[in-house]
Parts: sequence; C-alpha cells; structure tokens
Amino acid sequence: MKNDKKISTPVLRRLPKYYRHLEELSRAGVEKISSKELSKLINVTASQIRQDLNCFGGFGQQGYGYNVAGLRDSLAEILGVTKRYTAIIIGVGHLGQALANHNTLSRSGVDLAGLFDISPDVVGSEVAGHTVLNISQANRFCSENHVDIAILTLPKSEASAVANMLAEAGVKGFWNFANTELSVSNKSVSIENVYMGDSLMKLCYDVSAQDL
Amino acid sequence: MKNDKKISTPVLRRLPKYYRHLEELSRAGVEKISSKELSKLINVTASQIRQDLNCFGGFGQQGYGYNVAGLRDSLAEILGVTKRYTAIIIGVGHLGQALANHNTLSRSGVDLAGLFDISPDVVGSEVAGHTVLNISQANRFCSENHVDIAILTLPKSEASAVANMLAEAGVKGFWNFANTELSVSNKSVSIENVYMGDSLMKLCYDVSAQDL
Repeated sequence: MKNDKKISTPVLRRLPKYYRHLEELSRAGVEKISSKELSKLINVTASQIRQDLNCFGGFGQQGYGYNVAGLRDSLAEILGVTKRYTAIIIGVGHLGQALANHNTLSRSGVDLAGLFDISPDVVGSEVAGHTVLNISQANRFCSENHVDIAILTLPKSEASAVANMLAEAGVKGFWNFANTELSVSNKSVSIENVYMGDSLMKLCYDVSAQDL
Repeated sequence: MKNDKKISTPVLRRLPKYYRHLEELSRAGVEKISSKELSKLINVTASQIRQDLNCFGGFGQQGYGYNVAGLRDSLAEILGVTKRYTAIIIGVGHLGQALANHNTLSRSGVDLAGLFDISPDVVGSEVAGHTVLNISQANRFCSENHVDIAILTLPKSEASAVANMLAEAGVKGFWNFANTELSVSNKSVSIENVYMGDSLMKLCYDVSAQDL
C-alpha cells in the first residue's frame, strides 16, 4: 500500500461512498463485485473506480472483480474507521441532539464523550446517555479526556472563538455545522465544514430544470 | 447565457459554494473581486473559477475582476434561489426539527408548508409555526398545496415507500437524510441523498494523518 499521505482529496472524498456501499453489499451477503456492477450502484464510472482503488495497490483481480468483504476492510483501515476517536458536541440544540443520537458517529469509529452548551435550559439535562455540561468546562474536559474531534453545532458568531479554545486544549479536528469557515490559528488542525444548504440548492436547481 | 441544462454536475456542485461566498462578501460591503482573490477564499483554483463561470457566458472583466453583487444575483438566478419552492418535512425527530428551524431553507428559496410524522407523541405538536400532521394526510396535502420538495428525515426502512407515495402526489424533489439510496419508480423526480457520515469519515482520516 502506498503512503496514505499521497491520497488526493477528490479520491479521499469518494472513499467513504465506496465504503458505505461495500458495507451494504456485504450485509446483503454479496461476496464479489466487478467495477462495472459497482459503477451502476455508485454512479461513478468503472474506470474511475479502478483508478481510485489502484491508488492503494489495487484490490481487484481481472475477470473476478473485487472481494467485497476484503475491499470493505481495506477501506475501513485506510479511512481509519477501525481506530477509535473521542468526540464532544458543542451546542445541544436539535442538530446537536440529532447527531448525538445518530449511528453516524459509531459507524465512523467515533465515540461521543460529552456534550456542552451555554444555555441553563439545556445544561444538566441528559442527552444520549450524557449529562450536558457547561461550555466553560469544555477546555479542561478535552485535556483530561484526550478529545480528538469537536462537533460544532453552535451559532456562527461563537464558532471560531470556541474552536481556537478547543484547539489549545488538544482537539485535532472540527466537524463544523456553524455555516461559516472556521478561522483557527493552529494551522495543523483538520476542519470539515458542512454546508447543508449547498445540496438543497443543487436539488432546487434540478427541480426547476425538470420544467425546462 | 447558455442553456441551463448543459451545466455539468461538478460545476453545479461548486455553484452554491460560490454563491455562499459572494453573499458574504456582498454583506461585508465588498464590491469587486478577482478570480485570484476568490480562489484564496474558496479553495478552488483561479483557473477553475474562471472556467466554471465562463459556462454562463462569463461575468468577469479582465483587469477588473467580478462585480460581487452582480455575480451573486446571476448565480441566484441560475440556481433558482430567486424562485420559491414549497417543501414538507417527513419525520419530526431532532434532525427534522433542526431543519425546520434552520435558515438554510429560506436562504435556498424554500418555504416550509408542513411537517408530518407517524408517532402520536409528535403529531399535533407545534414545530416552526406548523402543527405536525399525521403522515396519512401527506398525500392529499401535497396534491392540494403543490408541494415541490419533500425533506425525508425518517427511518431508512420507510424512506422509499414514502417517497413513491409522495412522487404520485406530485412531489418533484427529495432531500433525503435517511442514509439510504431512494428507489423511486418515477424516474423524473430529482433526488439529493445526504450522507453526513461521509464528511465525518474524511475528517477522521485527516485527523489520523496528522500523526503520520
């Protein structure tokens, strides 16, 4: 396998999709699949699939196709799903609660360790098996519990200040739902900004194009 | 402007990002911007930006750059944000409530017309100014209110059956958070599947690569 660091971002963005489909195929009892069959399921061309998977030395065998379980496991390892990450959620509104209770976290290898908010209405309540703590405790909590990832579901105006504080406390990655680009002075942290509106706009475009 | 139908999917996926940044720049009082400056903000190469925006006849002027407000308005029109779409939410859990109360809908030109659930705990409650209705009423509601888009925040197992029912009632687009590919027999509907876990996996990969 080549050095993980060399995987380009576009390839990396497709890997979770491959992984997701291979997981489903495997659960459905499928043992092998050709790049052509996978292509139909995934809506990526067969040659693109072969090229992407070749980045890792290639798992396919000509005339046989891919071993579903084997490829799934290799991708899990590459993506780091087999490792465990510790995460906290900052902002326990509806979105924070949705993510806390969603199996997306555990399926990605992420363990929720705590939730934080500033509102007295929420602090002290139980969410997903955790007592919501005051955000003033987040810093110390992160240092003590070696938190890897902070999930930010808090208002845009607070996001960068909170992220900077948490980065100081050792948080390495931010999954950011605050609808703003985070500005974090520690440049070595990883940031994934989620803009849900982007896919809604794409859908609106497609819907309006139906009438043309 | 060329025929909207010819815009390729990769270009189309970048347009909401351009639009989002231009909106922010415009709010900040910025009047013009070069493709090079835009490139730094957006993390897309300047030549890619010029190429993308050329698809629509080009809005830039050499040596001047783009007129921020003008480009924002042109993109709004292309994306159909200036039109209004009527939407319902199916599944009023935390994620459904988060989306109902989020300004993502209105910023994309989408008006929420109703919410539906199957649980007696939720049906009859007030969410985002609407009384949650029983899902058995969704079909008639969509026909009578010309609903364009259904936002699916319901369990995976129900998603395709509900989508098929709604497509029969005239719904043209599905924003699908059920973590499964929708199978809808009416092939002319538009579907945008959202897999939030994909971006979390990408983040986990980046975090683990920090240690390499």
